[in-house]
Amino acid sequence: MSLINTEIIPFKATAYHNGKFVPVSNENFKGKWSVVVFYPADFTFVCPTELGDLADNYAEFQKLGVEIYGVSTDTHFTHKAWHDTSDTIRKVQYPLVGDPSGQLARAFQVMIEEGEDAGLAYRGTFVIDPEGKIKTIEVHDNGIGRDAAELLRRVKAAQYVAAHPGEVCPAKWTEGAETLKPSFDLVGKI
Amino acid sequence: MSLINTEIIPFKATAYHNGKFVPVSNENFKGKWSVVVFYPADFTFVCPTELGDLADNYAEFQKLGVEIYGVSTDTHFTHKAWHDTSDTIRKVQYPLVGDPSGQLARAFQVMIEEGEDAGLAYRGTFVIDPEGKIKTIEVHDNGIGRDAAELLRRVKAAQYVAAHPGEVCPAKWTEGAETLKPSFDLVGKI
Amino acid sequence: MSLINTEIIPFKATAYHNGKFVPVSNENFKGKWSVVVFYPADFTFVCPTELGDLADNYAEFQKLGVEIYGVSTDTHFTHKAWHDTSDTIRKVQYPLVGDPSGQLARAFQVMIEEGEDAGLAYRGTFVIDPEGKIKTIEVHDNGIGRDAAELLRRVKAAQYVAAHPGEVCPAKWTEGAETLKPSFDLVGKI
Amino acid sequence: MSLINTEIIPFKATAYHNGKFVPVSNENFKGKWSVVVFYPADFTFVCPTELGDLADNYAEFQKLGVEIYGVSTDTHFTHKAWHDTSDTIRKVQYPLVGDPSGQLARAFQVMIEEGEDAGLAYRGTFVIDPEGKIKTIEVHDNGIGRDAAELLRRVKAAQYVAAHPGEVCPAKWTEGAETLKPSFDLVGKI
Amino acid sequence: MSLINTEIIPFKATAYHNGKFVPVSNENFKGKWSVVVFYPADFTFVCPTELGDLADNYAEFQKLGVEIYGVSTDTHFTHKAWHDTSDTIRKVQYPLVGDPSGQLARAFQVMIEEGEDAGLAYRGTFVIDPEGKIKTIEVHDNGIGRDAAELLRRVKAAQYVAAHPGEVCPAKWTEGAETLKPSFDLVGKI
Amino acid sequence: MSLINTEIIPFKATAYHNGKFVPVSNENFKGKWSVVVFYPADFTFVCPTELGDLADNYAEFQKLGVEIYGVSTDTHFTHKAWHDTSDTIRKVQYPLVGDPSGQLARAFQVMIEEGEDAGLAYRGTFVIDPEGKIKTIEVHDNGIGRDAAELLRRVKAAQYVAAHPGEVCPAKWTEGAETLKPSFDLVGKI
Amino acid sequence: MSLINTEIIPFKATAYHNGKFVPVSNENFKGKWSVVVFYPADFTFVCPTELGDLADNYAEFQKLGVEIYGVSTDTHFTHKAWHDTSDTIRKVQYPLVGDPSGQLARAFQVMIEEGEDAGLAYRGTFVIDPEGKIKTIEVHDNGIGRDAAELLRRVKAAQYVAAHPGEVCPAKWTEGAETLKPSFDLVGKI
Amino acid sequence: MSLINTEIIPFKATAYHNGKFVPVSNENFKGKWSVVVFYPADFTFVCPTELGDLADNYAEFQKLGVEIYGVSTDTHFTHKAWHDTSDTIRKVQYPLVGDPSGQLARAFQVMIEEGEDAGLAYRGTFVIDPEGKIKTIEVHDNGIGRDAAELLRRVKAAQYVAAHPGEVCPAKWTEGAETLKPSFDLVGKI
Amino acid sequence: MSLINTEIIPFKATAYHNGKFVPVSNENFKGKWSVVVFYPADFTFVCPTELGDLADNYAEFQKLGVEIYGVSTDTHFTHKAWHDTSDTIRKVQYPLVGDPSGQLARAFQVMIEEGEDAGLAYRGTFVIDPEGKIKTIEVHDNGIGRDAAELLRRVKAAQYVAAHPGEVCPAKWTEGAETLKPSFDLVGKI
Amino acid sequence: MSLINTEIIPFKATAYHNGKFVPVSNENFKGKWSVVVFYPADFTFVCPTELGDLADNYAEFQKLGVEIYGVSTDTHFTHKAWHDTSDTIRKVQYPLVGDPSGQLARAFQVMIEEGEDAGLAYRGTFVIDPEGKIKTIEVHDNGIGRDAAELLRRVKAAQYVAAHPGEVCPAKWTEGAETLKPSFDLVGKI
Repeated sequence: MSLINTEIIPFKATAYHNGKFVPVSNENFKGKWSVVVFYPADFTFVCPTELGDLADNYAEFQKLGVEIYGVSTDTHFTHKAWHDTSDTIRKVQYPLVGDPSGQLARAFQVMIEEGEDAGLAYRGTFVIDPEGKIKTIEVHDNGIGRDAAELLRRVKAAQYVAAHPGEVCPAKWTEGAETLKPSFDLVGKI
Repeated sequence: MSLINTEIIPFKATAYHNGKFVPVSNENFKGKWSVVVFYPADFTFVCPTELGDLADNYAEFQKLGVEIYGVSTDTHFTHKAWHDTSDTIRKVQYPLVGDPSGQLARAFQVMIEEGEDAGLAYRGTFVIDPEGKIKTIEVHDNGIGRDAAELLRRVKAAQYVAAHPGEVCPAKWTEGAETLKPSFDLVGKI
Repeated sequence: MSLINTEIIPFKATAYHNGKFVPVSNENFKGKWSVVVFYPADFTFVCPTELGDLADNYAEFQKLGVEIYGVSTDTHFTHKAWHDTSDTIRKVQYPLVGDPSGQLARAFQVMIEEGEDAGLAYRGTFVIDPEGKIKTIEVHDNGIGRDAAELLRRVKAAQYVAAHPGEVCPAKWTEGAETLKPSFDLVGKI
Repeated sequence: MSLINTEIIPFKATAYHNGKFVPVSNENFKGKWSVVVFYPADFTFVCPTELGDLADNYAEFQKLGVEIYGVSTDTHFTHKAWHDTSDTIRKVQYPLVGDPSGQLARAFQVMIEEGEDAGLAYRGTFVIDPEGKIKTIEVHDNGIGRDAAELLRRVKAAQYVAAHPGEVCPAKWTEGAETLKPSFDLVGKI
Repeated sequence: MSLINTEIIPFKATAYHNGKFVPVSNENFKGKWSVVVFYPADFTFVCPTELGDLADNYAEFQKLGVEIYGVSTDTHFTHKAWHDTSDTIRKVQYPLVGDPSGQLARAFQVMIEEGEDAGLAYRGTFVIDPEGKIKTIEVHDNGIGRDAAELLRRVKAAQYVAAHPGEVCPAKWTEGAETLKPSFDLVGKI
Repeated sequence: MSLINTEIIPFKATAYHNGKFVPVSNENFKGKWSVVVFYPADFTFVCPTELGDLADNYAEFQKLGVEIYGVSTDTHFTHKAWHDTSDTIRKVQYPLVGDPSGQLARAFQVMIEEGEDAGLAYRGTFVIDPEGKIKTIEVHDNGIGRDAAELLRRVKAAQYVAAHPGEVCPAKWTEGAETLKPSFDLVGKI
Repeated sequence: MSLINTEIIPFKATAYHNGKFVPVSNENFKGKWSVVVFYPADFTFVCPTELGDLADNYAEFQKLGVEIYGVSTDTHFTHKAWHDTSDTIRKVQYPLVGDPSGQLARAFQVMIEEGEDAGLAYRGTFVIDPEGKIKTIEVHDNGIGRDAAELLRRVKAAQYVAAHPGEVCPAKWTEGAETLKPSFDLVGKI
Repeated sequence: MSLINTEIIPFKATAYHNGKFVPVSNENFKGKWSVVVFYPADFTFVCPTELGDLADNYAEFQKLGVEIYGVSTDTHFTHKAWHDTSDTIRKVQYPLVGDPSGQLARAFQVMIEEGEDAGLAYRGTFVIDPEGKIKTIEVHDNGIGRDAAELLRRVKAAQYVAAHPGEVCPAKWTEGAETLKPSFDLVGKI
Repeated sequence: MSLINTEIIPFKATAYHNGKFVPVSNENFKGKWSVVVFYPADFTFVCPTELGDLADNYAEFQKLGVEIYGVSTDTHFTHKAWHDTSDTIRKVQYPLVGDPSGQLARAFQVMIEEGEDAGLAYRGTFVIDPEGKIKTIEVHDNGIGRDAAELLRRVKAAQYVAAHPGEVCPAKWTEGAETLKPSFDLVGKI
Repeated sequence: MSLINTEIIPFKATAYHNGKFVPVSNENFKGKWSVVVFYPADFTFVCPTELGDLADNYAEFQKLGVEIYGVSTDTHFTHKAWHDTSDTIRKVQYPLVGDPSGQLARAFQVMIEEGEDAGLAYRGTFVIDPEGKIKTIEVHDNGIGRDAAELLRRVKAAQYVAAHPGEVCPAKWTEGAETLKPSFDLVGKI
């Protein structure tokens, strides 16, 4: 079954955020837009570039009222240590959630269950609306990096559609572009 | 469980392709890169813009040796009729696969099982390698369009990584950009 | 078990009807006679001739207080598109119900579950009384067309019998012809 | 699941046929076209008119190489007795099969399992091809008689389609009328 | 488990009785003695002689307050037809119950489930007391006829024992003969 | 299911017979006609009169090649003791089988499983043919005695039918009386 | 699991006792000491000597307030007959319980379930206290007789222990002999 | 089910025997008579008197070719310690088997599973023949001592019966006394 | 699953303690620190040295408010006997709990279930806090002795941590040594 | 069931060891003594002191032929990062095994499955012999540190016992101290 439009599971976790350890739970997802970004492991290769890319765009996500949650199956202790020692990760201002039990990775169907990476997560990105429902899914096999700009476009499209019932965003829609207003007369006419 | 790295299921279907009805099966996926693009239904709104966007970029996908398969739960008859009547769809030169039994939509976990759109597919895009294994997943709730340019970037990254064992593509990597060569010494250093 | 005298299942669907998309449900079947006509798919071969044949006789069905529902596993979008482009279908004034999830085709046991037509419906015609109970069943393998005149005869017989308890319609009964009044003395005497 | 295109079950039964008791089994259905006609019970009302109607058309069915089998859950003894005493039934020259165990009525899904007619069969007519596969189904609730002429039309259509692969019979097709030759170019053009 | 002393199941059926079709149910068995006589089929060989034998003795059964029910898996229509055409059956004044669903034949464990007589009943005779409890069972394979005189003897013995608690009928007891009064002192003394 | 035409189960038991203890098993039933006569218990009331009645007719059964087996759930020790002390039982020349484990009573469905007679058998009489198959069943509730003369008639009928395939014994048939030869022309004529 | 200290099951049976048939149930075991003595069968060999041995000691058991119940899987009828004919059994003044259904033999785990003695009981003796709880078990294979004197010793020991909490009877204790008063200081000192 | 005539289970254990630790297994039971004597626990009250009573009679058991095995759920270490410290136990010359896992106590159904003595064994004595089959069972609730003399009598009876097929030991039989030779003529005569 | 932080099961047992038999249950563990020390068996080799080592340190455990419970699968009778006869065990002033049913050994997962020591316990030591929760586990294979000094260190550490929330004891911590106060700034700094 | 004497499960993992990533599997445990040391997480508090304590004693373990494996549910990447940044961990010369899937933590029953530390391991230490069998278990709740000196003592005792069959190490045994030679005469004498 598709995860699209399903609600985030109840959970409790600890994140490293702005020099502190803070609790994070499904309650944080209520009432605002969120992005959950899984990556395989701290202290590895593609991961910091992706987290850094998001960090560089974080201000814009904030402007859209969107919180970003970085998640790996590492502990929050390791997240702090990585933050302390990596120049790239030091830029990260959004919470890095520890998921050592894999509760989140399994709920979002990104847990690697077999092989030499068993226990790590695939690179999965999820846009979640203020009702806690998943609106977009993106998962890459581990060598393939994601692009924060595309994520931004997708978030804006999701927000636009949510805010404008009766309109839909066409392909490669970007902020300010025209949308479609589905109407009976359009059927079979595009 | 994640679909990443799982193999496409055995199937048989009929597609409308370049003015003909042609059989398509899992055998077509062996030995070349493929992209499977689900969309909810023929004769609807976002769908033709997405298929048109892919059509506009089709030459470049072809250059990369990639075949695109558009799939909805409509029949191949309906695909032809849409092609005959829609200016946008008339541009589509890749196969449009009929999936009226939903065998493909269910296998790729994009089938909508409940509500007023039950029986239609979510907008899902899958990059599949020449072994028939899924390398990337992207699924949007139905109002949110996709971007062919981002898909192209993703395909190139997947191909690059497959062709260069020992290198990985960092975030927002584009063709020609530097990759990372994971090495012991890089651990904890990025 | 036979479907005869079983009640139509609860369902919700969308139909194309007289230039609009309208909701259809089991509630529509209460209190009036109905005919449900399944056909394999829009934009195919036998189907339009059958739907046209019914369209030509629709006035007479209407006079009998009978609504006709054409159903295929296509969407209502496709039904509209077909209506817009086919001269034959343009004549159809009764609702064309979209059943992309196959809920109706499975309930009436006309779904093709295997083979190259999997996901399509067989040609099934069902006369349903004002209590929502199925009174006659007719299903043809897909190359064999039906005849609206025979359906009309069958509907009239069903209505006559319902209206005249204690009478039954003999073979090839047509409107106005004599019926039989089963009585004890007739047993073994015909 | 639909009975269309399923094969007749293996069975053994005894029929009254032309003044004799003869064995009938699924073997009789191999290599020629057959029609199986269920009716509720011997010595009842609608039944003899239907059987008589078929008797009147039997010569034509014979010309088409079709055997008719009348079946009720009565015994072959009762069939003979009815034949001996009823003027209508005396005309019947096709076999009347006894099905007191209900094996055939259940296999063709026409058995009435509850209510005051439990143990009798609904009025079901089945056209079966020379491979023993069911090609058309017609079942009426018990007060509603069938029409042998329509059955004849249906048999001819089924035979025509079987003999002319690549052609299909449109609605209200009758012998000699034009058929349709499905071709790619017709899609969406009728 | 033995059927002796078990109660007749709840049932509803239709019987041919004295020129009418009448309902029969387990309620008819309350408050009076009954005999249920199964036979294989109407219009067969041994059957009419047995039914006739009972008819000849019916007056005496009536004097004892006993109703007789003839039962086969034929319908009540067939029972009437048989009555109309057979000199022997015309004598029958007790109800002939139709059991086409086999509900009674199965409840009394006389249904033939396999072989060429499947669907017919064995020749079973059951004496039932005014509480609806089975007091005697007699079942013959189908070629072997029963004797109404012995049944009469058995009914009288059953009635005598029911009416005289503390007495039992010895072997070959007939009306008026001595019975045994079981007492402690008789133990081991007969 | 009916016991008629089922085969006697494999068993081993010990009988008192003509002043000796002898083994009895299902092997004894092969190749000759047998009668199995259950009775509730030794040293009780109706039982000896029934066993005596059979003893009086034993010579005639012997002439027909029939062995009689008296069976209760008592032991063979008790059978001997009863034989030694009862004038009636002293006449018994056929085997009295001990069935303290109830293996036979349960196989013939005459075991009383509940109430104050639990562990005893009902009065059941079974005629068994030389293949070990049960041809007639007779079971009485415990106060009602059986009649050896009727049993003799029944055995003769069973033997006659077995010896004359194609003939059946009508009601109250006795040795020497006419039988019926079922033929097609008799159907519906008796 | 051991039967020791488990309670006698609820049961109803009939016994031969002092020239009468009397009901016996688990209620009889409440409030007084009892001995239950199983033996294989009436009219056999070891059995009467054992029952006679108990009869000879019955007065002493009575003085101790103990009732004895002889039990076999024979009926109470057979018990009476045995009593009437055996000089040894005539001496028995305690109840002989009929257990033809084997309810007691199975509850006390002395039923022989297989082999040529299937349906008989082993020689089991059980001392039961006034709460209905089993205090001693003795079971012998069938050739080996028991000794009433040893049973008497065992009953007295059981009664003594019950009456003197805090004392236990040493090996070969007999009435009047010293008992042991378990105390802490005795541990490891005997 | 009764343990009588069942075979001792396969087991391995360690015993204290004549100043040594020796292995004991089911193999020791083959080819000679054995007595297994369970008692609750070492260093308790009734136990040593019973073991001492057996010790006093051990020479006589030996003469009969019988080995005695004392068993409790204590270890063989504890058995040795008890032997070293108790004057009574010091007399014991037969093996004292350690059963701390309770394998033997459970197999002989003497394990106390609940209450304050859970984990200890009831006082059970078993005579076992040279085939390893249990011939007599004796179990006492824990306060009630056994008597070695009665055990000796029982062993002799078991041995006599085994050695003299066709004879059985009557009640209170002792060595040298007469036995019974069961014969047909004795039935009902004792 | 780990036993750490699980609560001791409800149980009832008897211990030998200071010259008396005393009841011990899970209630004893509430409100004070406890140590449970399993050992294989009384009267064996390593065991007394371990119990003696604990006895030598018992005063110090008492000062810490800790009760020690020695447990083996022997009975309390054997514990007393061992205490009476062993110079080492005579020093033991803490309770020696009898666990012949193995309820405690199984609950603490130290029961040996197979092999020649089946039914004995491994050498397991458990520190339990005043809520009855297990805080440390130590289990040795049977030849390897434990050290009371290390146990004392472990108890003190457990008590210190319980008493000083927010502090943890580093490796080889001993009473009076510094502890660690986990704080955010220490993460990654030790 | 106890883990003592069970064999280490088959597994594959990656460890950080002496500046390299190396594979570790159950094969490494064959043929030499090993110690497996679980700790909750890298970059936490007690953990480095314990790992440092082991590092300080590593030379001595090496002399004994013992390899140490530090294991947490962190990845080997994190282990390297910790090693690079922590002065204490920099001293560690034994492998640090990554167990992000928890396969080892679950197999050794030290996984924390619930609460805020879910996904981390308890502090467990296991001595494993050259056959891969666990000889000692030590698990502490997370605040309580272990002592490498005690572990060393325990390893030496385990090695001594393995090398000297027939000797056992008494409590607080240290290298060079006397052992016990279990012999029959010692039973009950220590």
